[in-house]
Amino acid sequence: MKFSPLLSDLIQAFTCLPGVGNKSAQRMAFHLLERNREGAIGLSNVLHNAMEHIHHCKQCRTFTEDELCDICRHPERADSGLLCIVESPQDVLAVEQTLSYSGQYFVLMGHLSPIDGIGPEEIGLDQLELRFKNGNINEVILATNPTVEGEATAHYIAQLCNEYNIDASRIAHGVPVGGELEYIDGNTLTHAFSGRRKL
Amino acid sequence: MKFSPLLSDLIQAFTCLPGVGNKSAQRMAFHLLERNREGAIGLSNVLHNAMEHIHHCKQCRTFTEDELCDICRHPERADSGLLCIVESPQDVLAVEQTLSYSGQYFVLMGHLSPIDGIGPEEIGLDQLELRFKNGNINEVILATNPTVEGEATAHYIAQLCNEYNIDASRIAHGVPVGGELEYIDGNTLTHAFSGRRKL
Repeated sequence: MKFSPLLSDLIQAFTCLPGVGNKSAQRMAFHLLERNREGAIGLSNVLHNAMEHIHHCKQCRTFTEDELCDICRHPERADSGLLCIVESPQDVLAVEQTLSYSGQYFVLMGHLSPIDGIGPEEIGLDQLELRFKNGNINEVILATNPTVEGEATAHYIAQLCNEYNIDASRIAHGVPVGGELEYIDGNTLTHAFSGRRKL
Repeated sequence: MKFSPLLSDLIQAFTCLPGVGNKSAQRMAFHLLERNREGAIGLSNVLHNAMEHIHHCKQCRTFTEDELCDICRHPERADSGLLCIVESPQDVLAVEQTLSYSGQYFVLMGHLSPIDGIGPEEIGLDQLELRFKNGNINEVILATNPTVEGEATAHYIAQLCNEYNIDASRIAHGVPVGGELEYIDGNTLTHAFSGRRKL
């Protein structure tokens, strides 16, 4: 015995969400059917809308329903000549929440990973090069993740910057503020030592 | 800074799912936008369909898109005169998977809980009484959960059965098959002893 066909379809459909298996999908389906049909209809509509209208910003590749995202449209940011390169839209949000950066962004939507067939074009580096050519960027801050792939991507882009005589810098790796030295891994600590600054 | 309005709406909409907070909702939204737009459109359609067409079975109150669910339409089950009373459609599935029961079901969609304003009518006991009156039920198996509310609900329905001279039985509480005695709580063990059967 199974649930009714439509109910089975609904449960199956929920498993397309990340981290949702059959049991969680059942729980979601029954929760919405029993307690929140309005919310479910709302989710259905927004989901449809979003998938139809959200695409990549023409300039920075983040997700937006407009041609250019809010940040790219900001005139002061465009004049700053600063470009921060991150891997994902969530990273943009993380940097923005610090309130300490006021330049533009370029979102790679991933990182170089030749083994998965992700080369420079897949992460929009041709588009980035066009921006370098246009010549209104003075400095690039490489804020890719401190993983092997992130580092490789940062190095690749740094070389690209070199070709166009643009300053490229990598965000600092070191001990997180509020962290305790004894719990920090050796690799991070090595970075913290080699990246020390004079007081 | 926030995400674009439509993207924020999408993230917000996902939080109507049980166990999904803001961070998981972000993860879901970005996963679907980046990797599975087809699946998202599918989910949107099924969700809309399901919320519009799935309602309670007229006879047993489980979820179905038809007037009567598959089990209620089954002629042999209708003739069995057996009625198993459970709290949720998932419980029906659990019992069905044992392949050891071939009667009909009645799904309370909850349990008596006066403190939350859930009385006999909210769990369909008026409807159940009508079925008792019709007189084609000989035995009722009370398979509500072994919680305080589940027990109270079972007792309430047992009294109802008594009024209509219908046999009512409660599923056995005891040591789970494959369990080890030393890890079983005292309450369950007490039930296992008082419910012992002659060999």
